[in-house]
Amino acid sequence: MSRDLLGGVVVHPGRRLTARLAQTLAVADAGSFETAPAAGLTLTLEGVPGDPHAGFTRRAGPREPWHPRGTEIRSGRQLSIVSVEELAEIAAALGRSAVEAGWIGADLVLEGLPSLSFLPAGTRLFFESGACVVVEAQNAPCRHAGRAIARRTGQPGDELSFPKIAKRLRGVVASVERAGEVTAGSGVVVRVPEQWLY
Amino acid sequence: MSRDLLGGVVVHPGRRLTARLAQTLAVADAGSFETAPAAGLTLTLEGVPGDPHAGFTRRAGPREPWHPRGTEIRSGRQLSIVSVEELAEIAAALGRSAVEAGWIGADLVLEGLPSLSFLPAGTRLFFESGACVVVEAQNAPCRHAGRAIARRTGQPGDELSFPKIAKRLRGVVASVERAGEVTAGSGVVVRVPEQWLY
Repeated sequence: MSRDLLGGVVVHPGRRLTARLAQTLAVADAGSFETAPAAGLTLTLEGVPGDPHAGFTRRAGPREPWHPRGTEIRSGRQLSIVSVEELAEIAAALGRSAVEAGWIGADLVLEGLPSLSFLPAGTRLFFESGACVVVEAQNAPCRHAGRAIARRTGQPGDELSFPKIAKRLRGVVASVERAGEVTAGSGVVVRVPEQWLY
Repeated sequence: MSRDLLGGVVVHPGRRLTARLAQTLAVADAGSFETAPAAGLTLTLEGVPGDPHAGFTRRAGPREPWHPRGTEIRSGRQLSIVSVEELAEIAAALGRSAVEAGWIGADLVLEGLPSLSFLPAGTRLFFESGACVVVEAQNAPCRHAGRAIARRTGQPGDELSFPKIAKRLRGVVASVERAGEVTAGSGVVVRVPEQWLY
């Protein structure tokens, strides 16, 4: 299908992929950014109850320089999703044996999906309970996460290396579309939407 | 920039465009799907107060066959945005002199943006007050809107023609990211995000 859009657009059809939910993680300590493996999570329409990222809205921060700091905005960042494969790639590039999902506050870890960080906005992940989350954007690695990694690896240089190395490998942020349970080890159906270049 | 994604991905940089907010419309009658021109609208983080589409959540309907009908889900459809140019294209294809934005329940009408319906998910529209909305998806024309048009044109056949003709011309649905006023006749800055094909 092709239409006259800025000289012609091609619509690439949506696709169905499958993956495995390798890990689910929850905030272990209210004062910390880190998450720890849990057997499962209950997703509500506001995210993971008790998680600092839960809520329909949040305060604008350095990630949104186009809004005054502190302004209440639509969240779009309820969940952080990373992949086994991309975490391994980050670890290898840092020269560490592993980078754990919990160190950077991830909620869900997928396995078996190529280049998770490039899942386009609007991709839906369907879990076995019927719970569904929708990808909002590629996540940008920040020094905050780099600092958390450096604490764990004991290599202070990782604080600055991580944001560079993990660019386009740090997974995606997502919102909950339909509430429900998600269980570590279960299957995930991934629906990539139609895509085109504007 | 290129990476090994399913055989190589090319990241197309984001772009800044400008447009004009030609019209703002509000629900005139609580029992109706239609909207009527207003001098401006107050956007809250839940959408347009009093509009049946306002809210962080809504009930799943025929547009979401993957969720049981009636399940509470994340909204993603607070606002309907259409363009002067695409409405004219629909009217011409239907053989009518005009199709008004209000007939199909639009909230905002933009002018001066090519192929508005193809703005990708994650595109941000910035209004002069600082209010900001984020595009969620291309809107799909339905028979409900076709029926509303047929009532206005007096041509019963438009009910069935509209969903076919208006496919990929019916604008986008959006969520409010930052609250504020939007005023008919004012300027809009459009930030198209980076894009790639997964």
